[in-house]
Order: sequence, then structure tokens, then C-alpha cells
Amino acid sequence: MRDIYAPRIHGIDTSEIRKVFDLAAKIQNPLNLSIGQPDFPVPAAVKEAMIQALTDNKTGYTPTAGLVQLREAISTYLKPKIGFETEPDNVIVSTGVASILFLLFQTLVAKDDAVLLLDPYFLIYPALVKYHEAQQYTIPESFDEADVNSLNDRLKKDGKKLKLIIFASPSNPTGKILSETQLRLLSNLADEHDAVIASDEIYEAFDYEKRHVSMAKLSPHRTLTLNGFSKSHAMTGLRVGYLAAPPAYAGIVQKMVTLQQYTMVCSPHAMQWGAITALKTGIDAELSVMRKRRDLVYGILSKVTKLPYPDGAFYVYPDVPIDSADFVTRAIERRLLLVPGYIFSANRNSIRISYATREDILEEGAGIFCDMVRELG
Amino acid sequence: MRDIYAPRIHGIDTSEIRKVFDLAAKIQNPLNLSIGQPDFPVPAAVKEAMIQALTDNKTGYTPTAGLVQLREAISTYLKPKIGFETEPDNVIVSTGVASILFLLFQTLVAKDDAVLLLDPYFLIYPALVKYHEAQQYTIPESFDEADVNSLNDRLKKDGKKLKLIIFASPSNPTGKILSETQLRLLSNLADEHDAVIASDEIYEAFDYEKRHVSMAKLSPHRTLTLNGFSKSHAMTGLRVGYLAAPPAYAGIVQKMVTLQQYTMVCSPHAMQWGAITALKTGIDAELSVMRKRRDLVYGILSKVTKLPYPDGAFYVYPDVPIDSADFVTRAIERRLLLVPGYIFSANRNSIRISYATREDILEEGAGIFCDMVRELG
Repeated sequence: MRDIYAPRIHGIDTSEIRKVFDLAAKIQNPLNLSIGQPDFPVPAAVKEAMIQALTDNKTGYTPTAGLVQLREAISTYLKPKIGFETEPDNVIVSTGVASILFLLFQTLVAKDDAVLLLDPYFLIYPALVKYHEAQQYTIPESFDEADVNSLNDRLKKDGKKLKLIIFASPSNPTGKILSETQLRLLSNLADEHDAVIASDEIYEAFDYEKRHVSMAKLSPHRTLTLNGFSKSHAMTGLRVGYLAAPPAYAGIVQKMVTLQQYTMVCSPHAMQWGAITALKTGIDAELSVMRKRRDLVYGILSKVTKLPYPDGAFYVYPDVPIDSADFVTRAIERRLLLVPGYIFSANRNSIRISYATREDILEEGAGIFCDMVRELG
Repeated sequence: MRDIYAPRIHGIDTSEIRKVFDLAAKIQNPLNLSIGQPDFPVPAAVKEAMIQALTDNKTGYTPTAGLVQLREAISTYLKPKIGFETEPDNVIVSTGVASILFLLFQTLVAKDDAVLLLDPYFLIYPALVKYHEAQQYTIPESFDEADVNSLNDRLKKDGKKLKLIIFASPSNPTGKILSETQLRLLSNLADEHDAVIASDEIYEAFDYEKRHVSMAKLSPHRTLTLNGFSKSHAMTGLRVGYLAAPPAYAGIVQKMVTLQQYTMVCSPHAMQWGAITALKTGIDAELSVMRKRRDLVYGILSKVTKLPYPDGAFYVYPDVPIDSADFVTRAIERRLLLVPGYIFSANRNSIRISYATREDILEEGAGIFCDMVRELG
């Protein structure tokens, strides 16, 4: 058989997280701290809205961009966060933020374009940069003005202008929320380079000290706001995410919608009605449980190792004394499932721990983690 | 603002069907014969299965390739049609056949690769060929050995081997089902070129005289079978489609699954449980209604114009005396919504009529169509 594959497809690897899952599947009674989805159920009101939609035969195609009622509700939801009303035509709903990211990269990112990530980054970002044969630049997530200046020096040397700046705040894997000072630095950087900013706010609901500021508030003309219902309302498997754009980027949304006609077609219809209800459904009880766990795990871990303060999301990202791949392999021998930091960073000596799990599991797992750090340190 | 788009995105246009929809939206009380989805609801058992799944919190991520229970059920469903059992690992479930097609093209089709379509073709196929900068070859849907020979002459002259052969039987837009003789010609052609065959069988349930033969039965080692639940069980907006591969093409499925991790992630979870029920849920009552309509519209149209015999699906594709774009514009003036044939074919003088609608509308619409053909002929 001849080599039947298109060259592009060799540019993408199996997600390393899945490899951990495969290993994990073989362990009896694991302590699983690797999970990337909430352990609470879809809130009752949201579930009822989806069931009602199915009962009412809301099962046919929606508009490609998503139900106009959902796009209007998203605009209303975002207004106090970003400071302006988004035209519903400048919102696209797709099958999750992952789909949004793919449509966005297909639309914007050409070969050799310069894309800026904050390290550590969500693992899909570098995978998409590579798949689109673009050039990746990074600054640390804890960046200050000096880091931005040094980035500008590198870009100048390479004769490059940034095309896209993409980051998640709150962050997966660190839980860190960028400060307003940092957002201002990114805003200025985008202006200098005439770059598009993709602000991935999928963990925005998990903001325990109310520190989150939407990038679009500081850079309203350059920021695409990405969000969805997978994390906030435990709808990971139901596939509803969105992107909201300012008027200057209406064309980006249109092109993404056109490509969606030939790819995802639309986000699942009945689930979109659930999303409308989700926008009106708070998760205070769930958040107070998560916050308690965050405090618990941060308290335990910060005694034995360094980690960024986990403002939000449901992850912590502690340092370990050995390569994260080895650490994860050794942890599996002790029934403990973790995600190695090297898939999120050029620095291989950190571990992602998810606290979206029961407190007794979390406590036992964090205990084993600390033992290992002490033993290996 | 600099030109921010990636060049690839200029290779895709707004679906022409959507333009008709936009025009249509402005008409009062239209006779809509342009619809590409069944007018019956999701069968009750399927709907109940999805509601039960939501109630049971089947809302988290599924495996990227789809629920193993669904992939097993697909294998069992396909066995009598294709003559062998597909390994569940060689099945991928995605957000509809459109998503499957995109993942497949990304995996297989490189710049300048030769892709064979049957004319008229489903409109997404040429759009994907163009988007992937491949080279499109066509033979008529009514092809015989002479057409295949002439294609081979063209390919030889161009120094090309076919990479992919893709077609839908039953066909959208004509309703035609390919004969076993035709499938054999395609099978031989694929062998000659060492080509992959993608057999899009999304309309397979709509087979009024039980004429449909699955391509994989004749070319088991070369055929990818594509199908889903959008048409058979009216789940267009719920996004569940699949591809089943022979062992020789296991690698194609693996690469599609890998790409899906970074794009659609998974087909909606609760809907996948609906799909499992759908595989056991017949639609005999719905089919007998559709067949009656098929006979009605074919009876009316065949008196005034030529059209391929509509074996299946829920479309007819009659000739018209003028360019199909003009014909559709004139029809809209008479409240009649049709889809112009030029989006499905190099031949611009046909019209797609959907009979997935009420009989009184169908009869009135078909009457106006016949009047127009007589007036313009």
C-alpha cells in the first residue's frame, strides 16, 4: 500500500493526557487526580431545559452560527464582563471551545505566522500551532514588562510580527488568573503588532476570589472572547462553546461560520437550549465545594513544594524534583493518577493535579504526592 | 488592518443552499421544497433513550472515538450489509457525516491529489476538494464502462492516480442508487489506482425498492462506510455520524481520532445513547409516507420533464429549460423554494426538489414547477 496520508496529518500526536488515561485504565481502585471535568452533575434546571427541548422536537438543524436566542443571551451575559454589547451576528456557537479553536486557527493562522502562548499553556494551543505550521513564541505566565521586551527583541531578530496571542485565564494547568497589569501589557503588545487576541475564558466561572478580568474589557477592539458550558455547567460531553468578536473582527466570525457549514454544521440543537438556561443558572454551591478543595490541596502541597497560587479553575501545578514523565510513572505504581507538566510547558518539572474529585481521594492523593516529593527531593 | 486571514480560508464559499434559505426567509407563506431534513420527528424510542441518558448524567466526555457500546452496535448493524464484522476500534463516531468527511479529507487528501466524484455530487464534496487544494475528476452518476475508460485516459494524460473515490448512494441530489455493475466498476477502478473509497450511505434507510448495495460488500478492503442518524432518525441537529473501516485502513481511523481530540472532541454524549437505540428502531411508517410522496412527485414531474428515477433518499432532480439559478429566482417569485442544480453539478439545468414535506404543499409546488417548465420550455 502506498503512503496514503496527507503530510499535514503527521503534524499531530495523540494527546499525552490520553496516554495517562490508558495507563490509568489498567489500575485497580486508582486515586484519580488527572480529571479535566467537574465531578458535579449538570445543574437540574439546565438538564430540564435540554429534556424539554428534546420533548419539543428541537432536534433539527439550527442556524450554522447557533440559535439566535443563544447568541443574544451570550451577548447579554458578556456585556458586564467585557463592557460592550456584542452583535449576535458576531457570535459563533460550535461544538465546544476545541472546535472554536480549530475553526479560528484554520481561519487566521497561515504557515510561519507567529503565535504567542503563555507557558504553561493549554496543550491544544501548541498542537494547533504545529498543525498549522506556524511559529510558536512563549513568555512565562508570570510575565512582566521585561519578558515582553525580551519577546519583542526575539521577534525583531526573527523579522516577525505576532499574528495571534492566545491564552487561558484562569489557566489550565496552573489555575492562575492574569492580573490587570499583565492584561494591559498584552493589550499594548497586540496594538504594536496589530495582532488578534484569543482570550480563552472557559474556566472563568471558577474564580474563587473574584479576580478575573476579561481581556476584552482592556482590549475591546482586538479581543475574541472564547467560552462555553463544558466546565461551568459540567457539559463537557454535550459540546457547546462559543466565540464573541468585536465589530472589527466580524469577518473572522463569518469565515468561521462558513467553514462550520462544511465541518461541525452546528452545535447540538437541544443542548443549545440547555446553554441558554445555563447562562441564567448560577453554580454557587458547586463553587464553594471546589473552593474548599482548592484550599485543602493548596494547604497540603505548599508545605512541601512550590506552586503558582491557584486563583481559579480546578487545578494546581506544583513543582516536582524529577522529570514529570518519570514522576507520573512512579505515581501510577502507587495508584495515583496525575498529568505530567511537560505537555503544558517547556519546563518538564511540574505536575497538574485536578481537585475536581472527592475530598477523601484528594487528601490521600495529595499525601502520596507529598511523600514522593520528599523521597525524591 | 492588515489582511489577517490565512490563505486557505479563501478557498471556501458560503453554501449556495444557505443563500436560497436567506431569500426564502423573506417570502410569506412559501411552498418549501428545498428542505434537506426529514419532516417526521425523532422516533419516540430514540428520544426517550436520549432523555434517559441526560437523566442518568451521561453528559461527560465519551472516548474520543465514541462510546464503545455504540461502535459495537454499529459493527453489528453493518455486518449483514457489508458482509463482515468491523472491529469497534476501526469505527469513529463524530459530530455528523460532515465532520467525518472533514476529518477524512484532513487525514488523506494532500495538495494536487486526484479525487473522483460522481456528477451530480453532494455539494460538500467539491468544497472539500477545493479547500484541500486537490484535483477534482468526475464521471456522470449514470456512468458505464466507457465513462470509466475515458476517465482513465484523462488521468493517464495528467499523470495522476486516484487517491480517493467518494460518492453518496442513494444520492443527494438525485435519489439514484448505484447498480451492482456500477459498484463493481468503481471497485476495479480503486484496485487499479490503489485508491480509498468513501461510500456515503447517509440516505441508505430511504431505499424504497430495496435496491441498495453497500460498496464495502464489493470492495471490502478499500471501502470506508459513512453513515449516521441525521436522516434516518431525523437527528440532523443532534450530530451523530460515523465511519467504519476495514483492517487495512485502521491507521486512517486512528489518525482521524487523533485529530478529533483537537477539534470536535467527541459526538454529544447523550445523543450517542440515542443512536444506539436508533440502530434498533425501524422507520417503516415514515418510509411508507415518503414512498407515497416519491411516487406522487415522480408521477407529476415525469409527464413534463426528464429526471433520473429516484430510487431513494427524499429528492428528485428534474431537468429545467433554463439555467437553474434563474429558474430558482423565478420560482421564488411564485412562493416556490427549490435548490438550483448548479451547486451539485457542472450541468446547470437541473433542480433539486425535496419531498420531505406535506403532500398538499408538495402537490401545489410540483404543479407550479410543471407550469414553469411548460412556460419556459
